[in-house]
Amino acid sequence: MIYLNENQTAQLISHELAYVAVKEALVAATSSETTLFPVVNASGSQADSMFSLKSACTSNLVGWKTGTYWPENHSRNMPCHASTVFLLSPDTGELVAAVAASKVNAYRTAAADAVAVDYLARKDASVLSVFGTGHQAEYEVLAISAVRHISRVIVVGRNKSNTEHFVRRLERHGVLAEAGTARFACEHADVIVTATTAKEPLFVADWVKAGTHISAMGADKIGKQELPVALYQYAKLYCDHEPQSLVIGEFQHTQDASITEIGKAIASESAGRESVNDITVFDSSGIAVQDLFVAAKLIELSQK
Amino acid sequence: MIYLNENQTAQLISHELAYVAVKEALVAATSSETTLFPVVNASGSQADSMFSLKSACTSNLVGWKTGTYWPENHSRNMPCHASTVFLLSPDTGELVAAVAASKVNAYRTAAADAVAVDYLARKDASVLSVFGTGHQAEYEVLAISAVRHISRVIVVGRNKSNTEHFVRRLERHGVLAEAGTARFACEHADVIVTATTAKEPLFVADWVKAGTHISAMGADKIGKQELPVALYQYAKLYCDHEPQSLVIGEFQHTQDASITEIGKAIASESAGRESVNDITVFDSSGIAVQDLFVAAKLIELSQK
Repeated sequence: MIYLNENQTAQLISHELAYVAVKEALVAATSSETTLFPVVNASGSQADSMFSLKSACTSNLVGWKTGTYWPENHSRNMPCHASTVFLLSPDTGELVAAVAASKVNAYRTAAADAVAVDYLARKDASVLSVFGTGHQAEYEVLAISAVRHISRVIVVGRNKSNTEHFVRRLERHGVLAEAGTARFACEHADVIVTATTAKEPLFVADWVKAGTHISAMGADKIGKQELPVALYQYAKLYCDHEPQSLVIGEFQHTQDASITEIGKAIASESAGRESVNDITVFDSSGIAVQDLFVAAKLIELSQK
Repeated sequence: MIYLNENQTAQLISHELAYVAVKEALVAATSSETTLFPVVNASGSQADSMFSLKSACTSNLVGWKTGTYWPENHSRNMPCHASTVFLLSPDTGELVAAVAASKVNAYRTAAADAVAVDYLARKDASVLSVFGTGHQAEYEVLAISAVRHISRVIVVGRNKSNTEHFVRRLERHGVLAEAGTARFACEHADVIVTATTAKEPLFVADWVKAGTHISAMGADKIGKQELPVALYQYAKLYCDHEPQSLVIGEFQHTQDASITEIGKAIASESAGRESVNDITVFDSSGIAVQDLFVAAKLIELSQK
């Protein structure tokens, strides 16, 4: 069995690797040969600890990701979230690899939003507004900056000090960033990315200008919401995996919208952006197929 | 992360270790601190391949077992079934161990039936009848022989050649074995163990004499059945985990029987056998808590 530990995968991962793997995964997710199995949401004995088992099978990969959240790790100065991806041999069922993927998970999640930006945002998009000032928001900005010439980032946060701190973190990456209100951020954005734990819309639909692309990654549980449903009346809607997006993703809050799995747009079976004035929305609920593809690429790279 | 491969665990496992671990697990399974999470039944791309993810959490263990079944392994001269147990740290959620447990799984399954024999069969039980002539049946006979002075084993198989072959295999273990009909086997048994893939009763209730203990391990899916339901009108009924036994175990075929989780009998909260004439029945549907306890003991032993 191959075991890649967290130090190894943190060295191997890059936005480029995650982009290529996740793009392939999003296409594979729309194949009739791919199955996503029911998600287990489990817990440990420690109060509020949680782990999930998310499994999938494609034509050439089979396995699962275990994601853990142990809140008391905070007091141990350890990350509360961790992920490990496990691969079985598609030929024999043998356990062939365990790939520690905690840092990798942040890249993989950001990569899905960046793939959506690449396929759906205007080619000349240059102003990125980001809602959220946490760990994941930083990866989102960097992954999107790798697919568009982003000249300006507007950061929207609830907490002034966290927002200023985040702006400075982005500046250290060479990104020209500033804080702004939700309305200012929407009115100036070509691309909006939401990376929050919100349970109600972060902005008003009317603030979003024609031609904007939105990638929303926060909603991954029943009750979570980042976007105003009024958008869905005129925006073009995309997601990673429709059955999941409609239950735990952003589109749990709509009932009759027409939603396209982005893998179909990538593989050109469905239209992406048709005009510079289209508003496009991508909901990333996060699927195990992404994890399997990223883990497989990391193993390949580790063996070179 | 600790990884114990199949060769290591096959060396470390014993009926004694499995007995101690599984007994503790069956008691832990009845604790309010223990949770068994929903089972995932998944598949690979190979025709008829399957894998399951069975997870659980107790006061001091948390993790899951992945069981695989890849039928084409047969043509590769490899076992079709394999198991690996994964343990998380209850304190931090970190992946602390992966324990290959294919051979171990046969010991762990047999151990549950042997624990039931030890707690429920008459102390003077000496004749064991076994239904089934496969791989698992052999482990069942050996595990039960470790908890009672078994002087005679009667083997019931559908296929004469397989049955004779199995009798010879038992004799090589020093067990005095013979082939017999289902009726003969029931009428002479002090202990009956069923280890088949049957979907209908293997014998008639009236054939079972007073004082017999039955351990049934075959039923682990909807539609499977080894025992006649008429037995349940007068036998004392036990299982490993009632919610599972009633859905996928032997007791899916009864509706209003009173069933005791054997962990409660072991911990003496509930009565076991009360008279030499009681007929006792134990249904083993197989629970992830057993796997976690056995894996933890193997790790402990490997570090001595």
